[in-house]
Amino acid sequence: MADLAARLSEIVTPEHVLTGDAISDDYAHDEALTATPQVPAAVVRPGTTGEVSGVLRVANEQRVPVTARGNGTGLSGAAVPATKGAIVVSFERMNEIIEIDTENHVAVVEPGVSLSQLDEALASHRLVYPVYPGEYSASLGGNVATNAGGMRAVKYGVTRHQVLGLEAVLASGEVIRTGGKFVKATTGYDLTQLIIGSEGSLALVTEAVLKLYPRPEHQATVMAPFPTLDEVTGAVPKIVASGIGPLVLEYIDMLTMAAITAHVGLDLGVPQEIRDRALAYLVVMMENAHAERLDEDVQALSEQLSELGAIDVYVLPPQAATQLVDAREKAFWVAKANGADDIVDVVVPRAAVPEFMAKVSELAQTHQSLVAGCGHAGDGNVHLSVFQADPEQRYKVMRGLFEVGMSLGGAISGEHGIGKEKKRYFLELENPVKVELMRRIKQAFDPNGILNPGTLLD
Amino acid sequence: MADLAARLSEIVTPEHVLTGDAISDDYAHDEALTATPQVPAAVVRPGTTGEVSGVLRVANEQRVPVTARGNGTGLSGAAVPATKGAIVVSFERMNEIIEIDTENHVAVVEPGVSLSQLDEALASHRLVYPVYPGEYSASLGGNVATNAGGMRAVKYGVTRHQVLGLEAVLASGEVIRTGGKFVKATTGYDLTQLIIGSEGSLALVTEAVLKLYPRPEHQATVMAPFPTLDEVTGAVPKIVASGIGPLVLEYIDMLTMAAITAHVGLDLGVPQEIRDRALAYLVVMMENAHAERLDEDVQALSEQLSELGAIDVYVLPPQAATQLVDAREKAFWVAKANGADDIVDVVVPRAAVPEFMAKVSELAQTHQSLVAGCGHAGDGNVHLSVFQADPEQRYKVMRGLFEVGMSLGGAISGEHGIGKEKKRYFLELENPVKVELMRRIKQAFDPNGILNPGTLLD
Repeated sequence: MADLAARLSEIVTPEHVLTGDAISDDYAHDEALTATPQVPAAVVRPGTTGEVSGVLRVANEQRVPVTARGNGTGLSGAAVPATKGAIVVSFERMNEIIEIDTENHVAVVEPGVSLSQLDEALASHRLVYPVYPGEYSASLGGNVATNAGGMRAVKYGVTRHQVLGLEAVLASGEVIRTGGKFVKATTGYDLTQLIIGSEGSLALVTEAVLKLYPRPEHQATVMAPFPTLDEVTGAVPKIVASGIGPLVLEYIDMLTMAAITAHVGLDLGVPQEIRDRALAYLVVMMENAHAERLDEDVQALSEQLSELGAIDVYVLPPQAATQLVDAREKAFWVAKANGADDIVDVVVPRAAVPEFMAKVSELAQTHQSLVAGCGHAGDGNVHLSVFQADPEQRYKVMRGLFEVGMSLGGAISGEHGIGKEKKRYFLELENPVKVELMRRIKQAFDPNGILNPGTLLD
Repeated sequence: MADLAARLSEIVTPEHVLTGDAISDDYAHDEALTATPQVPAAVVRPGTTGEVSGVLRVANEQRVPVTARGNGTGLSGAAVPATKGAIVVSFERMNEIIEIDTENHVAVVEPGVSLSQLDEALASHRLVYPVYPGEYSASLGGNVATNAGGMRAVKYGVTRHQVLGLEAVLASGEVIRTGGKFVKATTGYDLTQLIIGSEGSLALVTEAVLKLYPRPEHQATVMAPFPTLDEVTGAVPKIVASGIGPLVLEYIDMLTMAAITAHVGLDLGVPQEIRDRALAYLVVMMENAHAERLDEDVQALSEQLSELGAIDVYVLPPQAATQLVDAREKAFWVAKANGADDIVDVVVPRAAVPEFMAKVSELAQTHQSLVAGCGHAGDGNVHLSVFQADPEQRYKVMRGLFEVGMSLGGAISGEHGIGKEKKRYFLELENPVKVELMRRIKQAFDPNGILNPGTLLD
């Protein structure tokens, strides 16, 4: 270990190699509810791609596990060090926005840049990076590693759709560049897309080329209480089909709405008698460069919502809308504060959400658990909190949820990733032919298995 | 060979195994200008995924090269059989649209379905699959294999952005399903994206889940002649930044415009004195669900084009617009008819197109070649025809074009692929670390190297 620390110090200077008590608790965990913290042998804070390369060369030579860390906001334990002998490569110093290219509409960023930092820099250019996974302190590197999604995916897609190119360091220390400032390419296998969502297990990203969009100036938020969850989720495909192109299309169940509005002290002005009848809410945000077009679309949507069975339709004042979206984004923290034992973010085809939710209710009853949530209804990504203290019962509920989701044509995780915490379910439920193929791909990138072992695959 | 044919006949019935004179010339080539036709040992026409699996099991066991074929419209030789001992798996019988799911906005198709067949089926649902790579007789399987792009990529992205999931058969004959009817997923490595664009070298796709969009009812086409090509390509980033969201944004140089309009006998009503001054044309198509919004956008665009230096601005009548786009799509055939020796589809950052074009002119002069073209200006994808009969000179021009494109941050092919015909350039110019990594990925999928050997990698 002393030898390793010395080697690493030569690369990043001793100031940026932390060992022993100098390692703060933060480096031992991410935000996964269930992960066991693990203090690593060392934390390394490289400042350049060359330094990342040097660190990986040493780690590869000495067969030391390496876990990459952005801002540590992940929800699946992928940033938890694999073992006490592992090193954490923290990208906190590589936090520069290298370029905002207004002609090509791309930003080039280092992995430690946070979403809020990027958004602030883009505002004055009237451009936007549209991925909005809820936690704005998250780093772009972490977003790339988990293929972060969020509320706006129904309009813009997820991180995968915004990343045009990467600079990445392989386990060997070799540096590659993939893609570039363009959308089209058929020039070999798409390494960009393969690295995105690989949770730090294939390569360490040191630079990302991100697609930007004109920033629409006008936004509106419509909220509609419905008598049943079924009616909410059933309305979603029809709203998408209408062609208004919503920016956000969320459902929030009654329990979650009560909890998140109470959490931030928000009064949306819904009369008590309507609240009593509403089992679920639909929240639709729209944006447009033209105020009058937005008004027309709000009008059309409101009429459609009434036809689809909404008890009432509220066009929220801007401040209340912002507060509601912020509150929705804090649903995870509210669930955590309320003692949720685990969370899931199953994705299913959006038209299958009602059936999925019905089966979730059955599962919760069978295993005497409470399951509540809200979800990105527009893209079938359902966020549920599972309240069940007994680990065996909880395992059954969780596995049941994943099985039901997969049987409806869905997948275990829409955006949180598999990490360490859902690996057991993934390996149990995924087609073994695919798992074996993924292992061979992992081997092609990282023959010594130093990159984030224990995450995703064994 | 007799044994192989017998084994294959057991799987697909003798009727669907062609050998000897029964193999039509079509199976020996695609549309690449430079590829040498190669008659295969056998053509197999499976009707089901199970049959594809059976064929690959036999081929893998006997180490027989397998080249997949859709409708043979490729431009890089990827569908040309590797050797005279190879078998072609033709997907002509697997041409069923399995499902049009109007709630989830997806179509599930077999690989032999053509773009025109799908478009016809979608029209009555008021949905659209937006990839428009020019050749509407192309198969979806071929589109997936080459990550087909085309004119509408500036608005919708390319095939990669529309394919949500696949069924694919590995070289071993094992069948996997990837992705599904959803946009979000972080559940293991993205095999869907890795297989897309791999030109038949990683797996054979037997089903694709495609994203659909509401079909906007109104379209308008604006054409503007400019005094210089520089002004056209320089205008493009500004039009994109305006936020009007063009569907198509093409430049056509003077030579190409004259050739393609003459080819189809199209008179766009541009007075001779303006034609004399116009070195290049910009063509912008827009679409909208609302006729009045479209009119407003056309008005705003026309004003912007005048400010950007257009000599004049023409809003084309629908029929002329359709004819012009059709003519533009036939540019390849016109180039072929005019004796072009090769074609390239380099992609560069869109703001780098003027610099790229300037360097192309220099290269053409240096090597006494004629290079003319048109391009998807909105996404930096430049299509050029190279007229140079001497192979050595032509190699220098081609390699020079690719080097210049790459030095500007671009890539060798935006949408045609590497295939067999650009492999030499790809292997010479690409970072060897990436090429080696791709070889290891290939090995992970296809340890015996039976899938499309000679394409992309050696």
